[in-house]
Amino acid sequence: MALYVRFEGPDGRRGAGLLEGETIRVIAEPFWEETRPTGEAVALADVRLLPPCAPRSIVCVGLNYASHLQGRPAPDPPTLFFKPLSSIAGPGEAIVLPADCGRVDPEGEIVIVIGRQVKGATREQAEAAIFGYTAGNDVSARAWQQQDGQWWRAKGSDTFGVFGPAIVTGLRHDELEVVTRVNGREVQRGRSAELIRDIPEIVRYVSTVMTLVPGDIIYTGTPGSPPEIRPGDVVEVEVTGAGVLRNPVEAARQG
Amino acid sequence: MALYVRFEGPDGRRGAGLLEGETIRVIAEPFWEETRPTGEAVALADVRLLPPCAPRSIVCVGLNYASHLQGRPAPDPPTLFFKPLSSIAGPGEAIVLPADCGRVDPEGEIVIVIGRQVKGATREQAEAAIFGYTAGNDVSARAWQQQDGQWWRAKGSDTFGVFGPAIVTGLRHDELEVVTRVNGREVQRGRSAELIRDIPEIVRYVSTVMTLVPGDIIYTGTPGSPPEIRPGDVVEVEVTGAGVLRNPVEAARQG
Repeated sequence: MALYVRFEGPDGRRGAGLLEGETIRVIAEPFWEETRPTGEAVALADVRLLPPCAPRSIVCVGLNYASHLQGRPAPDPPTLFFKPLSSIAGPGEAIVLPADCGRVDPEGEIVIVIGRQVKGATREQAEAAIFGYTAGNDVSARAWQQQDGQWWRAKGSDTFGVFGPAIVTGLRHDELEVVTRVNGREVQRGRSAELIRDIPEIVRYVSTVMTLVPGDIIYTGTPGSPPEIRPGDVVEVEVTGAGVLRNPVEAARQG
Repeated sequence: MALYVRFEGPDGRRGAGLLEGETIRVIAEPFWEETRPTGEAVALADVRLLPPCAPRSIVCVGLNYASHLQGRPAPDPPTLFFKPLSSIAGPGEAIVLPADCGRVDPEGEIVIVIGRQVKGATREQAEAAIFGYTAGNDVSARAWQQQDGQWWRAKGSDTFGVFGPAIVTGLRHDELEVVTRVNGREVQRGRSAELIRDIPEIVRYVSTVMTLVPGDIIYTGTPGSPPEIRPGDVVEVEVTGAGVLRNPVEAARQG
């Protein structure tokens, strides 16, 4: 098990590293094929963590836990959608609620990080293309999700694509757990073993449609029924081994 | 009026330039703020044209011509969606029809190219953020579009995000025309003056949701009723001043 992070130092320099306790051992980028320490180390306290990778594509699976479907049948074909890269927010960054968008919910999710280019994969190839896992918050504006046929605003607004803090490697896909807390109170909990479409199947299916490349991420769906979030709240999503993704919630500044 | 292209030379070197007849006058990248010729020139015949910019986000407007709606009311709020960067195909590249996807249609469109970062723009700021226009083919798998709630497969498959060949600058947003031909036969024609939501309004609306940056592109919608395309066809989309975007159609190779 190793924890990969990306960071920005006080001098603005960006880098990647292995998180070991309170220390980041710096490694060369990209780290998908090989982990090469540079010999440098920085203290976690001295840097700002960035999103742990820079995806080309962000794919999300909807409606993938029975506990979220609440009696509705699982969609077939499955419901997937994209977030734009403009929506990315990293650990600690504010989730900004757009003006006049109505209710916004967090969606804590296990996020797959791709480590190898893949298209038209078998289940085995799909599983082998996975580098590791991180925590994600698929922030969702519910009123927009109901008003719009396509979920571009509901799921794609600036700061609605939250992920991090670390990519954890060396864990089995069926032994992960995700827990979401709002202001310290647990509001969601799910296990990858409960996913309607499991993790290798998700990667296989996405790869029938599009080429995945190292750094791409796939949100795997959210369990249960998350509550509304409001300005001033703090949302945490914790995924087994990957750490706690913590983000404050703010209202958009009026233009 | 100027025509911006990107190209790959026989030595694999990539660059940008101004297309003047059969010659490309090489310019420094990025070219959004300032056009700086390097003094070099290459012959159009000696290079392969690439997509004319590298977007961070690809946004598309659906159902934006009365001729495409065929009597249905215009959606309110408007229907927008994303294509992933993995779907990009440039001038001359094959449109690959996925196995077992059923009917696929071309959708010839006027594409907006953003030249300035913008969020929460007024109509005037939105118009000022436009760098120019290019031609686009929003390739669409109709059966998948009907089966899936979200259009990720229908609109996001590899090679379904076609645009180019050049970005034309210096034209008014309301004087553009798009014509689509399949095997030389005209199958679609529309004018930007006919758009239900016009070009400055599209940019303004998108910018209420997400930050647009230089190089981002927005497909503005397709006119009329395009016909099915099949392996062996050649599709051309021509937009006023931006040239002809020509792509052959192929079947996917069976894995």
